[in-house]
Amino acid sequence: HTTPLLRSLHWLPVAARIRFKILRWNGTILPHTAPRTLRPSSTAHPVPPPLKVRGRHSSRLSTVFSGGMKFPSRSEQHKRFQTINCVTFPLSISVLEQPLLKPDEWSYCDHFWTDKRDPQGNASISGFEVLLQKQLKGKQMQKEMAEFVRERIKIEDEYAKGLLRLSQVPLAAQEEGTLGEAWAQVKKSLADEAEVHLKFSSKLHSEVEKPLLTFRDSFKKDMKKFDHSITDLRKQLAGCYTAVEKARKALAERQKDLDLKTLQLETKLSTKVEEEIRKARRKSTQAGDELMRCVDLYNQAQSKWFEEMVTTSLELERLEVERIEMIRQHLCQYTTLRHETDMFNQSTMQPVDHLLHTVDPAKDRELWVKEHMTGSVRPVNMEI
Amino acid sequence: HTTPLLRSLHWLPVAARIRFKILRWNGTILPHTAPRTLRPSSTAHPVPPPLKVRGRHSSRLSTVFSGGMKFPSRSEQHKRFQTINCVTFPLSISVLEQPLLKPDEWSYCDHFWTDKRDPQGNASISGFEVLLQKQLKGKQMQKEMAEFVRERIKIEDEYAKGLLRLSQVPLAAQEEGTLGEAWAQVKKSLADEAEVHLKFSSKLHSEVEKPLLTFRDSFKKDMKKFDHSITDLRKQLAGCYTAVEKARKALAERQKDLDLKTLQLETKLSTKVEEEIRKARRKSTQAGDELMRCVDLYNQAQSKWFEEMVTTSLELERLEVERIEMIRQHLCQYTTLRHETDMFNQSTMQPVDHLLHTVDPAKDRELWVKEHMTGSVRPVNMEI
Repeated sequence: HTTPLLRSLHWLPVAARIRFKILRWNGTILPHTAPRTLRPSSTAHPVPPPLKVRGRHSSRLSTVFSGGMKFPSRSEQHKRFQTINCVTFPLSISVLEQPLLKPDEWSYCDHFWTDKRDPQGNASISGFEVLLQKQLKGKQMQKEMAEFVRERIKIEDEYAKGLLRLSQVPLAAQEEGTLGEAWAQVKKSLADEAEVHLKFSSKLHSEVEKPLLTFRDSFKKDMKKFDHSITDLRKQLAGCYTAVEKARKALAERQKDLDLKTLQLETKLSTKVEEEIRKARRKSTQAGDELMRCVDLYNQAQSKWFEEMVTTSLELERLEVERIEMIRQHLCQYTTLRHETDMFNQSTMQPVDHLLHTVDPAKDRELWVKEHMTGSVRPVNMEI
Repeated sequence: HTTPLLRSLHWLPVAARIRFKILRWNGTILPHTAPRTLRPSSTAHPVPPPLKVRGRHSSRLSTVFSGGMKFPSRSEQHKRFQTINCVTFPLSISVLEQPLLKPDEWSYCDHFWTDKRDPQGNASISGFEVLLQKQLKGKQMQKEMAEFVRERIKIEDEYAKGLLRLSQVPLAAQEEGTLGEAWAQVKKSLADEAEVHLKFSSKLHSEVEKPLLTFRDSFKKDMKKFDHSITDLRKQLAGCYTAVEKARKALAERQKDLDLKTLQLETKLSTKVEEEIRKARRKSTQAGDELMRCVDLYNQAQSKWFEEMVTTSLELERLEVERIEMIRQHLCQYTTLRHETDMFNQSTMQPVDHLLHTVDPAKDRELWVKEHMTGSVRPVNMEI
């Protein structure tokens, strides 16, 4: 079912196509999050560029960032962007300009972009970490539910053991006749009940407890993989950010040097100074190219991280839906088994009810008298 | 409802009328067992005289014993009767002549007349003792059933305790959203189940165990009363039998003496001998009167015992029917309570089923994201 969409994406690298597949949600592909080809020579452009234009604000964002090859001053730049923990965000004025990737869905991919200062205010944790903790907590909840079911199993086993033991106790075993039969069935019914509860406990194990625990295994592995992947990309992004800052500082120094040289030329015009100015300008241009290259690499790294954040958070979202559905399904199985148990339990009473209705004191007397009678000849008066 | 029948019996002594009341069975009175007025001068007559003539054999029994004032010889008497443990029975030839008091009912009053040699062959136990042992065993069975129910109550209490405890364990208590609500209801349902089982156990106690035990109290008292009464009458009968034997021996001696005197008169006729013969004849007649009086007392005692045997064995029979009906009724109550328990148990699942059907992963995500979102502004490309 993925072919028609993926075919039109044949130009994407394989890894990107795999990610694209993950992004399919309820049959629709999110064009916003489609990985972009990054031209090494390109200047700043927003991540992600909205491929599909929606609403009246939709085109303003791209207009803002379509300034071409002009280098804005740092103060000018700082009005439009801010970099927090190496991630570059637009300033608050442009927040309303970004339509949500999945509006009205409260999707993980839309609401966890910022890092979160932890309650102690020391370190900060990433939005992805918040998602990951949710998953781990979900895993823990599922584990605890399985544990709860295991405890229930123990209670059922104990109950069944008690019923079975009592069913075999020889109390009133010498009751006779039809009443004796009914009584024996009352006792036997406890063994039947015990069997019903053992069956319940056995099915609880195989159909509720075990599935809740086995699902968890692949889940754990996946979480680790996601965690490593996002952490690595975030580290790369930090490395690129450091390189950008270094290149920016180098460029500033080169420009300062060029300005100094130009000032020197005004007071003392000489070919030597002209030569030095040409040299300083070349170095400044080189530093500018280096900064452009670093920014480009930074943007590539941020784009990669962004891409991975979207795909992974959607995957986590999918896994959480799966988890909830799975738990719901197994809790439904639990109630089904409980219902079955009550019904099977009722059926253990049927033979008892039947025999109780055939209890007959006259019949019981006949059986007993036939066995124990001492003599039917009545005494008569003595004659002298 | 007893008046019309008892009114026609106004000539009976009060005690006899009370006994007569006991004898009423299924609305009919057994005329065979009606107490008879015993004339002190009467000779041997069968116990009981069938007041109501039934079938072709019915009148033959009374014909056999209507020999009037004639004294049969012991050898002649021994052909028709035998006395076993002081009770006088007709010989086997006349067994077929006795119709059962309650034919086709296997009534206790018809089949426990003879004493029974115990398996060791030492002492013998009376038929009444056999009936009494049956009652005591029945009492024991009932007690054991109550004990069985008490054990069941313990098992239910233990089960309920386990369910309640587990229901309060904080496993997966942090599960959130609609799934969290459904899970909380799953846990709560265990407390509901516990309540159902506690109610079952409480009703088992008040509606099954207790009635089985309280009934037994008056039963025990009655048994003692019956036992004493029959034992006393049997002792009196034995006393009368000893008196009869003594009187019979005395009469034989007097007759031997008379015979000796009469023989003396044949060889030596004198007024002195004639006087002695007259004296011996008077003493012999007195001894005959004494024997008649003793036999009469014996027959009175046997009749009293017979009467008490019939009334008491019918009472025991009634009590046994009552016991069986009572046990049957309470075992039916047990199955009713079991059915109720299963149904109430099923109803504990209804709110769980309802909440499980409203579990919604999208809703849960919305709730969670609203609470934990870190930032919805997406990163953008850095510009130089």
